[in-house]
Amino acid sequence: MRTPEDFMKEALKEASKALSMGEVPVGAIVEKDGEIIGRGHNLTESSKDPTTHAEVLAIREAAKNLGGWRLLDCRLYTTTEPCPMCAGAIVLARIPKIFIGTMDPKKGAGGSLMNILQDERLNHFVQIETGIMQQQCEEIMKTFFKQLRKKKSEETTI
Amino acid sequence: MRTPEDFMKEALKEASKALSMGEVPVGAIVEKDGEIIGRGHNLTESSKDPTTHAEVLAIREAAKNLGGWRLLDCRLYTTTEPCPMCAGAIVLARIPKIFIGTMDPKKGAGGSLMNILQDERLNHFVQIETGIMQQQCEEIMKTFFKQLRKKKSEETTI
Repeated sequence: MRTPEDFMKEALKEASKALSMGEVPVGAIVEKDGEIIGRGHNLTESSKDPTTHAEVLAIREAAKNLGGWRLLDCRLYTTTEPCPMCAGAIVLARIPKIFIGTMDPKKGAGGSLMNILQDERLNHFVQIETGIMQQQCEEIMKTFFKQLRKKKSEETTI
Repeated sequence: MRTPEDFMKEALKEASKALSMGEVPVGAIVEKDGEIIGRGHNLTESSKDPTTHAEVLAIREAAKNLGGWRLLDCRLYTTTEPCPMCAGAIVLARIPKIFIGTMDPKKGAGGSLMNILQDERLNHFVQIETGIMQQQCEEIMKTFFKQLRKKKSEETTI
């Protein structure tokens, strides 16, 4: 029986792919009955498409695999708290539960800035569990921003 | 010089396509310098993908045409107030202004239920103009729900 940590490790593998491409390193997977049915990593810069966040891509793949837009009995694992767009997509897909690595105080829509996942006025309520492999999920973000600052400083020097 | 009403008519054409497919009839277009660079109509049921709302599809097409994820100097026209996912996508795409046909008190995220488009804590603020061809945008929704009720009542009778 695989644990939430096992699935978050898979989401972290996705985040690493984003990091290696110079993208903000967020990864997500969708799991059903212990099987991964959707994976995604942030691709905004490379795809030149603002909607290609990790969670949206994982949801799209999972829906394709299931043959329908309702991701009932599925769980989504994301390394970083979803933004408003991704939280909205999670609600639309009727995902019952999500696991979050690290929270995002700047634009998180799972309790930080707002809570779209648990807004009783919407027609779906998402259970949230946070802090799954938090240290590793924070670390990959820090690595990205360190690299970004280094790159910017080198560009300024040149 | 084309007016906001002219562009909303194009969004309404998109909504009509959705209606004829049995989809919730929402249509959207993205305009830049008077040219339509992205179009979309809700395709959730036919595509079996919960993220294929009109606004998201119009944004994706516009980004592809522009060759980048920043839809600066663009305007989005949508027949119905965007849901949280679409409002989030509009903010991510940095669209400066949107025109809305009719508001959605049940799940609108442009002032009705919440206002993601104008949340000062996010890094982008979207101007909103509402009530563009409101009657026609409301009418197409009413037609859809009337057809839906008729279909359900026929199914019950059978």
